[in-house]
Amino acid sequence: MPDTASTEPMTPYRELLGELREIAVLGSISATLGWDQEVMMPPAAAGLRGEQAAALSTLVHERRTSPRLADLIARCEADTEVMTDPDAAANLRNIRHDYDRATRLPTELVRETAETTTLAMHAWRENRERSDFAGFAPWLTKLVDLNRRTAEALGVPEGGELYDALLDSYEPGMRAAELDRVFGELRAGLVPLIRELRENGTAPSTEWMNIPLDIAKQVAFNRGVVERMGFDFSAGRLDESTHPFCEGAGPGDTRLTTRYDAGQMLSALHGTMHETGHGLYEQGLPKAERFGQPLAEAASMGVHESQSRMWENFVGRGRPFWVWALPELQRQTGDAAIGALDVDTVFRGLNTVEPNLIRIESDEATYNLHIMLRYDLERAMLKGDLSVADLPGAWNERMRNDLGLEVPDDRRGVLQDIHWSMGAIGYFPTYTLGNLYAAQLWDALTAALPELDSQLSRGELGGLLGWLRANVHTHGRRYTAPELCERATGRPLSHEPLLRYLEGKLRPVYGL
Amino acid sequence: MPDTASTEPMTPYRELLGELREIAVLGSISATLGWDQEVMMPPAAAGLRGEQAAALSTLVHERRTSPRLADLIARCEADTEVMTDPDAAANLRNIRHDYDRATRLPTELVRETAETTTLAMHAWRENRERSDFAGFAPWLTKLVDLNRRTAEALGVPEGGELYDALLDSYEPGMRAAELDRVFGELRAGLVPLIRELRENGTAPSTEWMNIPLDIAKQVAFNRGVVERMGFDFSAGRLDESTHPFCEGAGPGDTRLTTRYDAGQMLSALHGTMHETGHGLYEQGLPKAERFGQPLAEAASMGVHESQSRMWENFVGRGRPFWVWALPELQRQTGDAAIGALDVDTVFRGLNTVEPNLIRIESDEATYNLHIMLRYDLERAMLKGDLSVADLPGAWNERMRNDLGLEVPDDRRGVLQDIHWSMGAIGYFPTYTLGNLYAAQLWDALTAALPELDSQLSRGELGGLLGWLRANVHTHGRRYTAPELCERATGRPLSHEPLLRYLEGKLRPVYGL
Repeated sequence: MPDTASTEPMTPYRELLGELREIAVLGSISATLGWDQEVMMPPAAAGLRGEQAAALSTLVHERRTSPRLADLIARCEADTEVMTDPDAAANLRNIRHDYDRATRLPTELVRETAETTTLAMHAWRENRERSDFAGFAPWLTKLVDLNRRTAEALGVPEGGELYDALLDSYEPGMRAAELDRVFGELRAGLVPLIRELRENGTAPSTEWMNIPLDIAKQVAFNRGVVERMGFDFSAGRLDESTHPFCEGAGPGDTRLTTRYDAGQMLSALHGTMHETGHGLYEQGLPKAERFGQPLAEAASMGVHESQSRMWENFVGRGRPFWVWALPELQRQTGDAAIGALDVDTVFRGLNTVEPNLIRIESDEATYNLHIMLRYDLERAMLKGDLSVADLPGAWNERMRNDLGLEVPDDRRGVLQDIHWSMGAIGYFPTYTLGNLYAAQLWDALTAALPELDSQLSRGELGGLLGWLRANVHTHGRRYTAPELCERATGRPLSHEPLLRYLEGKLRPVYGL
Repeated sequence: MPDTASTEPMTPYRELLGELREIAVLGSISATLGWDQEVMMPPAAAGLRGEQAAALSTLVHERRTSPRLADLIARCEADTEVMTDPDAAANLRNIRHDYDRATRLPTELVRETAETTTLAMHAWRENRERSDFAGFAPWLTKLVDLNRRTAEALGVPEGGELYDALLDSYEPGMRAAELDRVFGELRAGLVPLIRELRENGTAPSTEWMNIPLDIAKQVAFNRGVVERMGFDFSAGRLDESTHPFCEGAGPGDTRLTTRYDAGQMLSALHGTMHETGHGLYEQGLPKAERFGQPLAEAASMGVHESQSRMWENFVGRGRPFWVWALPELQRQTGDAAIGALDVDTVFRGLNTVEPNLIRIESDEATYNLHIMLRYDLERAMLKGDLSVADLPGAWNERMRNDLGLEVPDDRRGVLQDIHWSMGAIGYFPTYTLGNLYAAQLWDALTAALPELDSQLSRGELGGLLGWLRANVHTHGRRYTAPELCERATGRPLSHEPLLRYLEGKLRPVYGL
């Protein structure tokens, strides 16, 4: 424990930070076990792992909602010296926010939600397989109801609506009204842009993506890119798992995973760069000194996603990066087919716009239409404006209108995502918020770093990371995501940077 | 938790088993983190891992010594129905034993020992490097004193001595007087046998061991042997680490490690077979039903070591195994130099007897003399018959008398082992006990399995494992190690089987 060796007296604030660090240490154990479960654990250990996870989550929940913690928080809030210190005050504001939310939920509601989601996830898997929405509908009805009761227990923020109470779990400080404004404007620009590209443009070739490449060579190339991005391997790892993820367990321990396919030369790269974006944020948070404090936590899921999307798309699907990366890949692999590629073929192929029924297979532009669809529908269900029975129809109509696609079955439609079965309503918007924040941060940082393109084209990625460290990572939860955005970019969140970025990149790719 | 779904009433015994399972689940988390630390953890995570381990060990210690546990044990002991059930009675006997030992140690003594060993291990590493016994002596003096106070707090068993209290931590039911008897007779036979081999025999060639072999091919061969031994990979793993070990964290999760050197064709094999021997014991304990109960725990460290030594030495250094293994290795590798080897060259080379200054580099015969030396000296120090200052002299004299070796410096003498710096007095004997139990079990099982040699020479290892499962693994801690030995072999522990086994194998190898 960091404070025990100190000779300073044990103030309530120091005691509070000690308690939070101990809780975070217990949480970090769950995180490491979660990584192990996906990457290392033998299958027969699943039962034991369930018992371990339950034991830890009970311990953490008890400590996070304990009267002792309430008492320490209250004593700190009454302490002028604490509340006039900017760091301490920022910590206290978030600690109070989290404690109140954790204690507002009745134990019975938490238990019922946990039990229902376990069963609902199972029902979702089975009914998705069979493309049987009717079989999943009773579960979704129950989960919408549980989410409504959760939102009511958490409390509607001033001037907000029920949905805001849920959104606040993932994106503190964000409001549905604000999402409506920004998403609406983005959609108004995106739908015609996508139509124009598809109707008047020339789609690039993507045949070259199917050039095969040994997994060992892909591993070496991916690892090299991750190192060059600035990921500290002395404080992290890169492994393989079925679903790529990033686990930032605690100080000195951030682990990434990716997935390789020998049949596609770049199979893993963008997933790897995405997870590394998350990993760089985790490594950039001031955890060494402040583990357990809000100042060492991510500002929001949307800001987290902005980091992964920026590296995956703004860098990894940008032309300057490939000016360096393609010759490097050609040199490393010595492969004749890869050697015959040129930068423009790769750059253009990586920026194809092709409406897809499946969200996670979608491109940078159409992806956001998938998210807005889910946001509008889940919000309408929560409000009671849309019944669960009417959901597939609403889904399919919106896919037709926005993306021009006919949904052939619910498996490839309304049943494709796990999120609702996990009880997560209010989560989807953070994906498009990530793209919006990324674009607005990219605007600001390209203005601040005039040499960025030429750096990227030499594979020098440190200037970009330095800007993100200073303007995003180092702040933790000192500011809400909207505040952080405004501070780092000089203006409130807007749809314009993302729309301008997509237009500026995609029109030339499509010869327009 | 296993019992919550049951409709049976919650008796004190069921409550006790539930509590023990929860404690074991917390302990299994430490075990998995310990494995991760040696195999996966990035170096910068060491500080966090220390905090995680400390948090878990505090939680486990609190639960293991809680008044609630005392109350449950007492209520079960007063319950005739429990105490007349053989399984429950065997559990209770061990639970009482462990609880009493855990609560007899004053917290202050536990704390002082933990702090001292952390510093002493550091001091040992530094002074071993410099071969400076004087620099380590004050730490050893303090650790001997702490061990004496620990033994006094634990209490001398009836008719026993102080050393027995410590020995009981690793080998419950064993006594120094019994070790004196068996070790004395073993030594009386071993010293002349080793001298005779060395003076009158012809040492086999070991040149062939330096045939190089790709690590990938060694990995495949090792994994194949582990599978053939019966290790269940759906409930376990085999990885690499600096120091090979086996971690049986809990039901469905047993992990082995080994270490490869491309310069030696069999670099990892015997270490792998050793750890797999431990792993098969862990997988054979009835943890699925009884995790947390003594009936699902190993009988003793000595019995655990008997399993690893049997597979490493009795199988892995036996001629029948190599009748199968050498052609298999030749087939798998397609290597010309390996292809030119014959079974007798390999068998004889693996059974060279060569006194070595270093315990862990010693052969099957001389190894035991290393152990007896350490046992006699640590017991004399605990009794006060040998001062720490006189230890190096006593060590060197004994090495000269027993092994005919002059110790050139303390680094290769009294400072070579980590055990004393960890505060472990009473641990060393379990290594030779492992060899003794292995030999006596081998006598019994070869009598029960007349086809064993021909099975081994076809690579059929299931008959051996079946016997070990039925006669050792399945019993857990139902019997003490001496009881288990007598039950499985029909007679009390004796030096004869090991001595006869070594004579029977080594004389012919040396042409005598």
